[in-house]
Amino acid sequence: MKRTLGVCYYPEHWPEAQWAEDAARMADLGLTWVRIGEFAWSRLEPQPGQLTFDWLDRAIATLGAAGLKVVLGTPTATPPRWMLDRHPDMLAHDREGRPRGFGSRRHYDFAHEGYRRESARIVTLLAERYGRNPHVAAWQTDNEYACHDTVLSYSPVALAAFRNWLAQRYQSPDALNRAWGNVFWSMDYASFDDIGLPNLTVTEANPAHQMAFRRFASDMVVAFNRLQVEIIRRHSDAPIAHNYMGMITDFDHFTVGADLDIASWDAYPLGFLSDRLPASADHKRRFVRQGDPDFQAFHHDLYRAVGRGRWWIMEQQPGPVNWAPWNPDPLPGMARLWAWEAFAHGAEAVCYFRWRQAPFAQEQMHAGLLRPDSQPAPAHDEAADVARELAAMPDQGTAQADVALVFDYASAWAWEIQPQGRDFSYFRLVFETYCALRRLGLNIDILPPDAADLSAYRIVLAPGVAVLSPSLLSALGRYQGLALIGPRSNAKTEEFATPVPLPPNLPGLQAVVARVESLPPDVPVPLEGGGTLRHWREKVETGAEVLRRCDDGWPALIRSGGMHYLAGWADPDTLTDLLDSLCQSAGIETDRLPEGLRLRDSQSHRFLFNYNAVPVEWGGQTIPPAGVVWHKL
Amino acid sequence: MKRTLGVCYYPEHWPEAQWAEDAARMADLGLTWVRIGEFAWSRLEPQPGQLTFDWLDRAIATLGAAGLKVVLGTPTATPPRWMLDRHPDMLAHDREGRPRGFGSRRHYDFAHEGYRRESARIVTLLAERYGRNPHVAAWQTDNEYACHDTVLSYSPVALAAFRNWLAQRYQSPDALNRAWGNVFWSMDYASFDDIGLPNLTVTEANPAHQMAFRRFASDMVVAFNRLQVEIIRRHSDAPIAHNYMGMITDFDHFTVGADLDIASWDAYPLGFLSDRLPASADHKRRFVRQGDPDFQAFHHDLYRAVGRGRWWIMEQQPGPVNWAPWNPDPLPGMARLWAWEAFAHGAEAVCYFRWRQAPFAQEQMHAGLLRPDSQPAPAHDEAADVARELAAMPDQGTAQADVALVFDYASAWAWEIQPQGRDFSYFRLVFETYCALRRLGLNIDILPPDAADLSAYRIVLAPGVAVLSPSLLSALGRYQGLALIGPRSNAKTEEFATPVPLPPNLPGLQAVVARVESLPPDVPVPLEGGGTLRHWREKVETGAEVLRRCDDGWPALIRSGGMHYLAGWADPDTLTDLLDSLCQSAGIETDRLPEGLRLRDSQSHRFLFNYNAVPVEWGGQTIPPAGVVWHKL
Amino acid sequence: MKRTLGVCYYPEHWPEAQWAEDAARMADLGLTWVRIGEFAWSRLEPQPGQLTFDWLDRAIATLGAAGLKVVLGTPTATPPRWMLDRHPDMLAHDREGRPRGFGSRRHYDFAHEGYRRESARIVTLLAERYGRNPHVAAWQTDNEYACHDTVLSYSPVALAAFRNWLAQRYQSPDALNRAWGNVFWSMDYASFDDIGLPNLTVTEANPAHQMAFRRFASDMVVAFNRLQVEIIRRHSDAPIAHNYMGMITDFDHFTVGADLDIASWDAYPLGFLSDRLPASADHKRRFVRQGDPDFQAFHHDLYRAVGRGRWWIMEQQPGPVNWAPWNPDPLPGMARLWAWEAFAHGAEAVCYFRWRQAPFAQEQMHAGLLRPDSQPAPAHDEAADVARELAAMPDQGTAQADVALVFDYASAWAWEIQPQGRDFSYFRLVFETYCALRRLGLNIDILPPDAADLSAYRIVLAPGVAVLSPSLLSALGRYQGLALIGPRSNAKTEEFATPVPLPPNLPGLQAVVARVESLPPDVPVPLEGGGTLRHWREKVETGAEVLRRCDDGWPALIRSGGMHYLAGWADPDTLTDLLDSLCQSAGIETDRLPEGLRLRDSQSHRFLFNYNAVPVEWGGQTIPPAGVVWHKL
Repeated sequence: MKRTLGVCYYPEHWPEAQWAEDAARMADLGLTWVRIGEFAWSRLEPQPGQLTFDWLDRAIATLGAAGLKVVLGTPTATPPRWMLDRHPDMLAHDREGRPRGFGSRRHYDFAHEGYRRESARIVTLLAERYGRNPHVAAWQTDNEYACHDTVLSYSPVALAAFRNWLAQRYQSPDALNRAWGNVFWSMDYASFDDIGLPNLTVTEANPAHQMAFRRFASDMVVAFNRLQVEIIRRHSDAPIAHNYMGMITDFDHFTVGADLDIASWDAYPLGFLSDRLPASADHKRRFVRQGDPDFQAFHHDLYRAVGRGRWWIMEQQPGPVNWAPWNPDPLPGMARLWAWEAFAHGAEAVCYFRWRQAPFAQEQMHAGLLRPDSQPAPAHDEAADVARELAAMPDQGTAQADVALVFDYASAWAWEIQPQGRDFSYFRLVFETYCALRRLGLNIDILPPDAADLSAYRIVLAPGVAVLSPSLLSALGRYQGLALIGPRSNAKTEEFATPVPLPPNLPGLQAVVARVESLPPDVPVPLEGGGTLRHWREKVETGAEVLRRCDDGWPALIRSGGMHYLAGWADPDTLTDLLDSLCQSAGIETDRLPEGLRLRDSQSHRFLFNYNAVPVEWGGQTIPPAGVVWHKL
Repeated sequence: MKRTLGVCYYPEHWPEAQWAEDAARMADLGLTWVRIGEFAWSRLEPQPGQLTFDWLDRAIATLGAAGLKVVLGTPTATPPRWMLDRHPDMLAHDREGRPRGFGSRRHYDFAHEGYRRESARIVTLLAERYGRNPHVAAWQTDNEYACHDTVLSYSPVALAAFRNWLAQRYQSPDALNRAWGNVFWSMDYASFDDIGLPNLTVTEANPAHQMAFRRFASDMVVAFNRLQVEIIRRHSDAPIAHNYMGMITDFDHFTVGADLDIASWDAYPLGFLSDRLPASADHKRRFVRQGDPDFQAFHHDLYRAVGRGRWWIMEQQPGPVNWAPWNPDPLPGMARLWAWEAFAHGAEAVCYFRWRQAPFAQEQMHAGLLRPDSQPAPAHDEAADVARELAAMPDQGTAQADVALVFDYASAWAWEIQPQGRDFSYFRLVFETYCALRRLGLNIDILPPDAADLSAYRIVLAPGVAVLSPSLLSALGRYQGLALIGPRSNAKTEEFATPVPLPPNLPGLQAVVARVESLPPDVPVPLEGGGTLRHWREKVETGAEVLRRCDDGWPALIRSGGMHYLAGWADPDTLTDLLDSLCQSAGIETDRLPEGLRLRDSQSHRFLFNYNAVPVEWGGQTIPPAGVVWHKL
Repeated sequence: MKRTLGVCYYPEHWPEAQWAEDAARMADLGLTWVRIGEFAWSRLEPQPGQLTFDWLDRAIATLGAAGLKVVLGTPTATPPRWMLDRHPDMLAHDREGRPRGFGSRRHYDFAHEGYRRESARIVTLLAERYGRNPHVAAWQTDNEYACHDTVLSYSPVALAAFRNWLAQRYQSPDALNRAWGNVFWSMDYASFDDIGLPNLTVTEANPAHQMAFRRFASDMVVAFNRLQVEIIRRHSDAPIAHNYMGMITDFDHFTVGADLDIASWDAYPLGFLSDRLPASADHKRRFVRQGDPDFQAFHHDLYRAVGRGRWWIMEQQPGPVNWAPWNPDPLPGMARLWAWEAFAHGAEAVCYFRWRQAPFAQEQMHAGLLRPDSQPAPAHDEAADVARELAAMPDQGTAQADVALVFDYASAWAWEIQPQGRDFSYFRLVFETYCALRRLGLNIDILPPDAADLSAYRIVLAPGVAVLSPSLLSALGRYQGLALIGPRSNAKTEEFATPVPLPPNLPGLQAVVARVESLPPDVPVPLEGGGTLRHWREKVETGAEVLRRCDDGWPALIRSGGMHYLAGWADPDTLTDLLDSLCQSAGIETDRLPEGLRLRDSQSHRFLFNYNAVPVEWGGQTIPPAGVVWHKL
């Protein structure tokens, strides 16, 4: 496969006279893809029914004439102002119950039937017109579902849809009452129409109620996306993608992704470090101009799984962004490093966001490959380097990893609803596990929670999975490698109850979680022989072998055959040591990498990425700051 | 008196087939009491008027047949969903003006007349049916008034009731205007119907307005509770209790308690430490699995006062809870220690919450005496130990303390309304005073603010009492012992004005608070001779003896005869020293206890409680971690 | 000119019998001015149309008879309760959309036409009655515009007014769409009636939209104030002032001030230090009883500019206030120091707030010159000292400064809307520049953003001015002295876009800001040769001389002729060094002052102010704590 570069472009932002020159410069730079159109609804249909697609025809023709391939976005993330006159109740409502108004983007409720019809209408018009256009080589649905906290809506429209969803799921209020345990505080419902949304209750709503609402909200995204996909497929053979945002767990990407051909994500390493990375101030300072050394790789591997092998970066940070708490300039070289890291993890394409920095509106402080005055910004030349290097690189293939890590969106919802300790975070638990594996120099594959075949892996990990799916449980039962399950895995039923018999109920492992505790961050629990657990610990009663114990005797790591259960949240160093031992048992060779140096093997090459601002010596060579080196395996 | 154990039980949560075995196990364990029914309204009346009390008949019969005594709770904390159809405006509104919806508990406005009638109806039905039931040996009204911030409601219903309350209190708008000083910012009202609630004003509302609203809100709780008490009394001779929550000051417990026979409270030492204890991070870490060494004792003594000698623990933490920021497992032994400490402070009964951990709904992570799979949890066996030890213990009586400390709910309201320094907290001021006394090894009695007879005490303390009541002032005038009043005592009139002549206006003490200042926590004021004041300081002009001075000359502690006034908030060590000196003056022997070791004398025994996680040597003996020892006096 | 003292007084708060004695004591103290009336509407018009001005007649007569001069305030900051019955929609709405209710003060929307008419009515009545009263020697409009965040209102009334304002500014929706770049996210409007307020959008509203709203909101204050001024001028020749609050930037004081004769401000040094000073905890602790050494001086110089030379302190803190997070007692001497510092900066009058501490309502904990019991508070005697000293002081004149610093309210709005780094603050940037100049012992003049003549100055500074006005740009073009512009200056167009060609576009300086970055506070950027930049940095491409560089080569300070551009936010010490060098270049002598010691020259005298709590040696003399000394120049 030929791996390619691209860029995001907004012809509607610039004089038409400039398009041809822009296209020529893109082609000269070595770009293949141009993503356009995803915010252009008001220019495609300035008044209801008044269609003005001609400029888009010409923009696509101009880009195509320059040899570029177009990714065409559906513009449903930015309905025009007139849409609100047609559908005054289409806005999502925030947790406080207030409509989230017009004036930025993503101002719609996924559950609104009228807006779904409008979306279908505009997508139909686009698909009919461009479905066979030779230059339109891929599609993007909407833009960054869930960004700006837009999945959970507490509107009357969402309430009505939720009631319908509940009625379909439970069939009778009594069934729902029993499933949720509504007897608990006299919360029984006599009718589905009695049920409210789980916000603004006096104290916490029933977690089963909350979990149902989370499932419903995710389903609304799936349905919204599916509607667009089905329309596009009727008119086009080009692959369809959505551009997911980083560290977003509010909907099930695997389910949305199952309807799509390609998963893509928007990679803003410095924005994410500043805005949402769960890490210490020291760590953030060290990597302030580089981004976290594992955050991108984690998402690459996650979206490779979501895309069932096919994935892109649809938006790649090229310089400072505008939306994080602080927005530093990337270290010279990072725009190249980030692209190469994506390719090493199997990306088909990397598109920089955006071509030219806009001088107006919300993102005027967001860098592009060009400055607002059309001069090249630093990333422009780094992209040119990548293009040249790509041309010289044979197809590297994507390696099969020895280690697999399960990621489950529903578990993120479960533990947001019931953290039990204030700092319990499913994402952080999984991400720290991923980081520990990366520190050992390993390739990792992410698995969906319904994975049914684990046979390719020597180690499978599933920390924090609230409910192990029947397929995964069954696969674990057949699995010949080493499995490390826990902490807090298989701890709930599908209806958010505690299973009896008690967790973890794992095949081949006789163990009962008799008690759990959450602990403040300044109360670590030492392990006999070194290391600590933090945040979360379980008291396991077991007849299995106890490999590690807490200093008060609670088992920390138990084993029965290949099935291991970790009964707490190990700190990063402890976790790295535990996983290293596990790798030794599994016959996997590990390399303890220096801080900030990361490694990824493709089928043919080994890549080394130096996220540090200083050179690093490793394996007999010096990797420069923000440097990437590779050699054939 | 025979002191007893009990447990909270929810027959409606479990198959009826399990009740008899549960009851037998309770009896075997040595329990006397079973509290039931307080959340069961939807099972007693699934539809309006459709009464299904038969299961409760059978549950009580089953428990009674096992030799257990029932505490029957009125279910008014959890009105069923259909209640909202009958009374759509019954919900309290939060400070932002939003209804606090159905879906958890305590979703009612205390001022709602319709819901009061519904409460009266269900209580009447229960009292009529069970008032003479031989197994129903005590009653509980509602559940944890004020929990989840449910006393202050900003609803239209509350507004109407507040206006009525104001009209009754002030009789004319002019009287109210004068009382509140409404001339200040042209806030005069021409009619009671012009008066709003004191939320959502541009800047702070008149503190007199706020104070009136706090008094009103407390009165609504009193009236709501009184209505139930009066009904139960008509049908039953069993004593009536309410289960107060820890560190709740939003209504006057003394006034509510005056209508009841027994005060009880819900003791969650680890939950309170994590959630609401005003203490340093170091202190919280040290006692993370034990709870604060004084927090329980303070409430024991407080509720002994509220119950006029008769008090229980209605809910005792048995293991990790689900609702605090962090929820650790108690140190082995704490479930026994906590119970014994309650008995040493005079509790008649201690009921653990709850029998079996629920596997569903909001509290599924809250431990019980049994696990969800009916196996014993650790507290089960500790409760059994207590039951055995109780059986062997002669009645110890409750000792008369030498030292009394006034607690006044209205002062908590006053200083919340007008902290003047961001960290001024009435509760913390009183609690730190209590802790200092405890560190000296003393028994303490809490007094209500209208105490009229102080003659039993050698020392009486009243820090932070905003308005000294006429009865207390009169008692202080007659008092022969040592009184320590202040800081910030008698600082307001009943209408929240500054009295002229200026405070403190104490009998026998010539002193004027000429100035007050609040100070950031990092600006302590040294005292001559050692020690510091923090947070709050007053400049007193006095002809009395100055016992201690600040290093800039402001008097810190003054005295005239037995009347002392403390002109600032002393840090804990300084306060301990000051109180120790006072005790010497009063001829009270003190013992400086090691950190975490606490002492309580009953009439017959001295009890030592080791709240530390390590053994402590004291008085020639070693008290184990989480240990309790006692000897006859 | 005779500089004078005064006090704020509320005759309506006290028995009429007390007025004469109060007036006599004021006169004895040496006061000249008494400000009255500004909150008295409910006593002037208890019911609509029922006028009761007789008491005010008598109060003015009593004060006048004692030889005092009256500043009469218009009472429009506290409309009576009945006003809401006449104008139910007159309340401002907060950012959450909720009305900000009656019960405190400033409960009106500046854009409400009905309330403007009511204001005009009461001001007309006052002006007609007292415009020629010989004792009414000055006027104050309303009270502390903007205090309690009252400029920005999100009400339906504000929305309608905003749409009108937009229609007048842009004339057509298309022009507005183009100006704002609404194409960006399909945000185009077809009608002015489609435009909303920029709150409660899904993510940030268009910054151009936000900026327009800020301009509109400021204009509403200007119009509200102008209406009152025009009425008063028709009936009175006395000068008219408004009392601005400290560190308020929500409206353009220069524009409001242009309609007035005198600028005055309300100086609460300890309140501001605790509540809003942008400084470290250490700094705040050091000056906790004195106030920041530069905060007052900055406002003195700012309001001298706003008042075009005529300015007062209308409210001077006399002791602890009630409204800051902590409210300490000022160090003895500060009430004198603060007054003298104002006079040294050219104040015509300093009025203490307030005569007697009120025992009731919101400010009962706010000290006055008298205690509530009418005894003198400490500031009473300090004011007497100042009065005596003033009498002995010849008129000192106001010195012309060598250094000028531009202050621009619109830039405060711009960088609040688009901080780009979380801690970017225009006020702090300018204030730190001011402080650095003060540490060098300099007099400073503040200039408005439309200053057209810089010829009086040797150095002009304009950090952070978002848009340099045509007049200032033109003046800079003609300027012969040294100019230091930047960072982040001239960075936007009037419509909040990035200018192309890129900033800074300064006369005579060839430079382009190719990139900007914001940095967390723990990521300083070292300069070659010492010092650091923090928070904000720009990458300048320039052919000009580079005077200082960052250690990674980015130019930090560049120069072409007298025009300097500073390409980042220097830390205070670095900034002091840079400005010192600049002063050397300009031939300005500097004195590095000890911490907390400040200096101000009038035309005739040099004043030294010791803000420390300890004595300071300087210039061969010892200045006592909280001391002021002066000598003739």
